[in-house]
Amino acid sequence: MNKVVQNIKRADPAVVKALGACGVATVHEAQGRTGLLASNIRPIYRGASLGASAVTILAAPCDNWMVHVAIEQVQAGDVLVLAVTSPSDAGYFGDLLATSMQARGGVGLIIDAGVRDVAELEKMGFPVWAKAISAQGTVKETLGSVNVPVVCAGTSVNPGDVIVADDDGVCVVKRDEAEAVLAKAEARLALEEEKRARLAAGELGLDMYNMRGRLAAKGLRYE
Amino acid sequence: MNKVVQNIKRADPAVVKALGACGVATVHEAQGRTGLLASNIRPIYRGASLGASAVTILAAPCDNWMVHVAIEQVQAGDVLVLAVTSPSDAGYFGDLLATSMQARGGVGLIIDAGVRDVAELEKMGFPVWAKAISAQGTVKETLGSVNVPVVCAGTSVNPGDVIVADDDGVCVVKRDEAEAVLAKAEARLALEEEKRARLAAGELGLDMYNMRGRLAAKGLRYE
Amino acid sequence: MNKVVQNIKRADPAVVKALGACGVATVHEAQGRTGLLASNIRPIYRGASLGASAVTILAAPCDNWMVHVAIEQVQAGDVLVLAVTSPSDAGYFGDLLATSMQARGGVGLIIDAGVRDVAELEKMGFPVWAKAISAQGTVKETLGSVNVPVVCAGTSVNPGDVIVADDDGVCVVKRDEAEAVLAKAEARLALEEEKRARLAAGELGLDMYNMRGRLAAKGLRYE
Amino acid sequence: MNKVVQNIKRADPAVVKALGACGVATVHEAQGRTGLLASNIRPIYRGASLGASAVTILAAPCDNWMVHVAIEQVQAGDVLVLAVTSPSDAGYFGDLLATSMQARGGVGLIIDAGVRDVAELEKMGFPVWAKAISAQGTVKETLGSVNVPVVCAGTSVNPGDVIVADDDGVCVVKRDEAEAVLAKAEARLALEEEKRARLAAGELGLDMYNMRGRLAAKGLRYE
Amino acid sequence: MNKVVQNIKRADPAVVKALGACGVATVHEAQGRTGLLASNIRPIYRGASLGASAVTILAAPCDNWMVHVAIEQVQAGDVLVLAVTSPSDAGYFGDLLATSMQARGGVGLIIDAGVRDVAELEKMGFPVWAKAISAQGTVKETLGSVNVPVVCAGTSVNPGDVIVADDDGVCVVKRDEAEAVLAKAEARLALEEEKRARLAAGELGLDMYNMRGRLAAKGLRYE
Amino acid sequence: MNKVVQNIKRADPAVVKALGACGVATVHEAQGRTGLLASNIRPIYRGASLGASAVTILAAPCDNWMVHVAIEQVQAGDVLVLAVTSPSDAGYFGDLLATSMQARGGVGLIIDAGVRDVAELEKMGFPVWAKAISAQGTVKETLGSVNVPVVCAGTSVNPGDVIVADDDGVCVVKRDEAEAVLAKAEARLALEEEKRARLAAGELGLDMYNMRGRLAAKGLRYE
Repeated sequence: MNKVVQNIKRADPAVVKALGACGVATVHEAQGRTGLLASNIRPIYRGASLGASAVTILAAPCDNWMVHVAIEQVQAGDVLVLAVTSPSDAGYFGDLLATSMQARGGVGLIIDAGVRDVAELEKMGFPVWAKAISAQGTVKETLGSVNVPVVCAGTSVNPGDVIVADDDGVCVVKRDEAEAVLAKAEARLALEEEKRARLAAGELGLDMYNMRGRLAAKGLRYE
Repeated sequence: MNKVVQNIKRADPAVVKALGACGVATVHEAQGRTGLLASNIRPIYRGASLGASAVTILAAPCDNWMVHVAIEQVQAGDVLVLAVTSPSDAGYFGDLLATSMQARGGVGLIIDAGVRDVAELEKMGFPVWAKAISAQGTVKETLGSVNVPVVCAGTSVNPGDVIVADDDGVCVVKRDEAEAVLAKAEARLALEEEKRARLAAGELGLDMYNMRGRLAAKGLRYE
Repeated sequence: MNKVVQNIKRADPAVVKALGACGVATVHEAQGRTGLLASNIRPIYRGASLGASAVTILAAPCDNWMVHVAIEQVQAGDVLVLAVTSPSDAGYFGDLLATSMQARGGVGLIIDAGVRDVAELEKMGFPVWAKAISAQGTVKETLGSVNVPVVCAGTSVNPGDVIVADDDGVCVVKRDEAEAVLAKAEARLALEEEKRARLAAGELGLDMYNMRGRLAAKGLRYE
Repeated sequence: MNKVVQNIKRADPAVVKALGACGVATVHEAQGRTGLLASNIRPIYRGASLGASAVTILAAPCDNWMVHVAIEQVQAGDVLVLAVTSPSDAGYFGDLLATSMQARGGVGLIIDAGVRDVAELEKMGFPVWAKAISAQGTVKETLGSVNVPVVCAGTSVNPGDVIVADDDGVCVVKRDEAEAVLAKAEARLALEEEKRARLAAGELGLDMYNMRGRLAAKGLRYE
Repeated sequence: MNKVVQNIKRADPAVVKALGACGVATVHEAQGRTGLLASNIRPIYRGASLGASAVTILAAPCDNWMVHVAIEQVQAGDVLVLAVTSPSDAGYFGDLLATSMQARGGVGLIIDAGVRDVAELEKMGFPVWAKAISAQGTVKETLGSVNVPVVCAGTSVNPGDVIVADDDGVCVVKRDEAEAVLAKAEARLALEEEKRARLAAGELGLDMYNMRGRLAAKGLRYE
Repeated sequence: MNKVVQNIKRADPAVVKALGACGVATVHEAQGRTGLLASNIRPIYRGASLGASAVTILAAPCDNWMVHVAIEQVQAGDVLVLAVTSPSDAGYFGDLLATSMQARGGVGLIIDAGVRDVAELEKMGFPVWAKAISAQGTVKETLGSVNVPVVCAGTSVNPGDVIVADDDGVCVVKRDEAEAVLAKAEARLALEEEKRARLAAGELGLDMYNMRGRLAAKGLRYE
C-alpha cells in the first residue's frame, strides 16, 4: 500500500516557470477560480514566489521519514508537497533537509503541517508555505508514500502538477492544463495592465465594468 | 433594503489625522477601553498606520460587488470598512481596487474577510487590516449596502466614524466623540512621556503607581 | 494563596546564554523532544532570540497587575513568563512596561496572552513571544502570583528555568538540567555541521542515515 | 461611563411569544437574512426554544458582577444577553443565578462566553445559548453596564430587542420591527406548509421554484 | 465549466448497506486507515448511521442553488455530499430540502458547511453530518456542479463512492473498492468479537497482542 | 527516558468518590479556582460524572501504544489521563480498550486527543472526556511513559491525583490536598443550598451578597 512512484511526468519547464511569474491570484482566476490551497497555508517569509513541479508526499502525523525518501525523487525545479494522514503541526522540515533539497535543485516546500529553522531557511533562500512554524521534532517510524495523489490543505494535488506560490498563498495547476492556463493567465495580465491605467486615471470600476444598470435592476437604492 | 447612503458626515480632518498619530492603544484607552476590533484583524504588512473616516460596506460572503459601489463614495482621507453578512475569508480586494482607491484619495481598507495581491499592495503603500490573506476570487451577484451601520469584527462602525489603525490592530472612534477622545488621548501621551522617563530611570511601577498598599490589603504575601 | 516568591535559583548565566545560542530546535531535540510551548506562541517580530532565566507570573484574565509586581523580582538576564488562569488575548504588556524591564536588565517576555505597542517594542529591541497582538487594555483588580510553577501554553515552567526562544518558538529547559542539556545541544550542533556538509555535497539522507534497509523491511515498494 | 438603564421599552408580549414560535430560521429569513448571532453560540441542551425581550449586559472578561445587577432589571418573559469587553470562555452563570432568574420570571440566557452547572440547568428547564461550557469561576471586581447597546457574537443587540432562539441558534429582532417581522414570518410559515406538501409529493424544487430557465441561461450544462 | 453529470455508477446496493452496518471506525481501518473526513464534520443528532452512494455537489459559498439541481439526480439510497469552493458555515439545507430528498429516497447529507432546521431534521429522521449548525440563509446566484469529483472536508469524494457515516464521523470508500473493503471490514468485525471476549475476561492487550518484547526492545523501563 | 511507574499513591477511595459527587464547578471553586482542564475537553455523552484516581499517559501523536501499557497499571476506581507530546485529534481509544479497562475496574478516560466508537462507549457506560471524536486509527511505534507528571489540556496532572469530571468539564485535585478540598467543597454545597432557597424566594443576589455599596463606590450609575 505504501509506495514510491519514481517516474512522474512534469509540465514543460518554461511553462512552469512562466506560471510562477503570473502569480497565485492571476493563475487561480485564469483556471476558473479553482486550485487554491486553504488560506492557513502561509509563507514563512515574505517576498518569495515560485512556479515548480510537485513531488508529493503522504506522511504520517509527526513522522518525516518520507521526506528523506522523496528528496531522492526530486529533480531540478521541483517543489515538495506534503500532506498528512491526520492533522499535525509538528516541524517536519528544517535547514538540513533544505540543504539536501538545494543540492538536488529542489526549490521549495508546501506543507500542511509545521516547519522549523525558519531563520536559517530564509537565509538560505529556501521558501516554505506551511500551516505552522514549530520546532517540534518528528520520528521515522511509519511509512507513507511518495508521488501518489494527495489532498493537501483541502485541494487535490497529483505528482507533476504545477505549484504556483507567492505571498498570497498557493495554487495548483493540473499538469495537462498548464499550457492552457498559462495562456489565459497571460491574457489576464495584459488586460489588467490596461484596467490599472484607467483606474489610476480616476475611472470608476462601476463605469469601466458597466455595472450601474445591473445594480439598479437588482434594486440598489441611492439615498 | 439594499442601499447606498451618499452624504455622510465626517469628523474634522485635522482631528482624524491627529487621532491616527496617537495610535490604537492610546486611543482605545482614551475612550474608556472601547472600540477595538477583534485581534484577528491584522495588518498585511508592518509599519503602516492611519487615521481616516469610515466608508462602510456590508457585503455578501465571497462577493465584492459593493466594493466597486463604495469607491464612488470615497473622498480623500477615507478608509473602507467592510463587514460580511456571513463569515468568509475570500480575497475581496486586490491591487486594481487599491489603484482605484488611491486615485480617489482613499487611504486604506479594514476588512473582516480576506485580501489578495498583498505584495503589490505593500509596494503601493496601500495598507490593509484583514482577517485573512487569500487569493480566492469573488463574484458580483448579490447586493449589499454602503454607508450603513455595520458590525465589523465584533465592533459597531457607523459611516463617518474615525478609524485608527496600526501594528496593534484597529480601533473605532464615534464621529461625534472624535474631538473629545483626541483631547484625552493627547493628554495620555503627555503623561506617558513622563512615566517613561521615570521607569527608564529605574523607578518601579509598584512605586510610581502607588500599588503596594492595595496589594497588601488584597492579601498578597511575599516569601 | 497568592504569593510572590522572592528568592529563586537561576542556572549559571554562561550556560543560560549558551543555550540561547543553540536555538530552540536544537535544544528541544537535545532534551529528548520535550519542553516546547504550543506553536501559537509567536515572536512579535522576526530575528530575535534569547536564552534567559524565567520569572514566572500567574495572572487573571485581562488583568496585568502582577506584571508590575514581577518586574521588581527581575534581575539582569531574566525573561518574564506569563500564564493566565483563564484564556485571554488582551494586551497585558506594552512599551512602558518594557522600558521598566530594560531598566532592570530584563531581556524579554513570553506570554500566553496578548501584547501591544509592538512597533515600539521592536524599535526598543525588546522581544516578545505572544499568543496575540492586541491593544485591549487590562485592569489591576485581581491578585495572581509571581515565581510559582505555572503551565504556559501547554508546558510546565518553574521559576528559574531556562527559556530559549527564537523564530521557531519557545522551549523550556529545567534549571537543574541546563548544563547537561547544553552539552547535548552543542554535541548536536557539531554533528549537524558535518551532516550539512555531506548533504550539501549531494549525499542523500537515505544513505547518510542508512535508511534503505529499514524502509524495505517495513514494506516500502518502489514503482 | 458604567451604567444601568432601568426603564427600557419592550415589544408587545404576544408578538414576542409568537416570534419565538416561528423559530430562528424563519424569523431570520423574514427580516431579510439579518440578525443572526455567530454560529458558535450553541444551546447547552437540545429541544429548548424561546421568544423573549433582551436585558443586555456588557461585562468584563471573567467577571460576572453585572449579572447580579442585571437580574434586578429582569421582568417576566425577559432573557439576559451578555456581551464581553474582551473574549472569555469562563463560566459566568450557573444554577444559583438561574434560580434567581426563574424567581423573577426570566426565561433564559444568551452569552458570548461560558456557562456552568449545565446538568442542573437542563433539569431546571433554564435554557442557555453559549460559546462554551466551562466551570471556570469568575470574579466581581470590574464594573460593566446593563441595558446599553451591545455587540453579542457579532450582532448588535439593543435592550428590549426581541430574542428568538432554538436548536438552530439565536436571532435578534429590533424592538420596533417586531410586529412587521412577525407578519412576514407567519406568512413564510404558511407558504412553507404548502411547499412542503408539494415536495413531499415528489415535485422538484427545480420545477416548483421555476429554476430551469435561469440555470440554463447561466450556462449550466447537463451531461 | 459548470456541469451536471447525470449517469453515475453506484456500487452494489447490498454492499453499500453492509458497509454502513460495519461502521466508520471499522471501514476506515479495513481500507488501511484512509478515507476519513475531517473530525469537525459531526452528526447533527446522535444515533444515526448510514451506508449510501454519493451524489456530489460543488457549491459556491453561501449559495445552495446546486442542492436543488442535485436532488433531481438522487436515487433511492443516495446521500448528498456537498463541498464548497470557499469556506462557509451558512445553512445550505433545511427541512424543506430534506422533505424533497426523502420523497426521492435520499437518505442523508454530508456537508462541509452549515445546516439548519435541525430539530425538524431529527424528527424526520433525516441525518446530516455538518461543519456547523446555522440558520444563515443562502442565495441562488452562482452555478456550481453536480456529480463531479470534489474534496469534502479534506478528503476526495467521487460521485458514486460509498459513504459510511455514524457517531464517529464520515468515511469514504471508493466505488470500485467497495466489495474488497467490505470483505476486510467484516473479517475485522469477526476478529474484534473474539478480542472483546478475551479482554472482557481480563486478558491484557499487552499479552493478547504480544507487545512486551517489542516494548522492551525499544527501551521501555519499568520502575 | 521512557518509563512506567508501577507503584503510585492514590487518595483515600472514599474521599475520591465524595469529590466526584461534589461536581466539577464546586470542587474547582473549593480549591481557589484552580485545576480545570481547558474547556474544549468535552464529555462524549451527557449525564456521566466521576471521581477517580489518575493513571497518567504521555503518548506520541497518533500512537496509542502506551494505552495498552497503562491499562496494566489500572486498579479499580482509576481513570486514564492521556496527554500528547504534539497535538493530535486521532482516535486513540475505542470500545475494545474500554472493555479492557472495565475488566480491570477502570472507570473512564480523560484525553487531550480523540476517541472513537462513541456510540458503543455510551452503551457500555464508559465515559470519556475528549478534545475530539474521530475514527482516525493510530499506530504502535513510539514509546511514551505511564504514571509520570503530564500537562493535559493546559493543566498539570500527577499520577494518583484525583480527577473530577461531569457535564461541566474536568478538574484535577492534587492527591495530598484531596481531603482538605473535599471539606471545603462540602461546606460550599451546604451554603449553596441555603442560598438557593433564598434566591428561589425572590431575594436578589445584590442584597444577599450585600453588593450595592461596593457597586456605588466603584461608580455604577442608575438611570
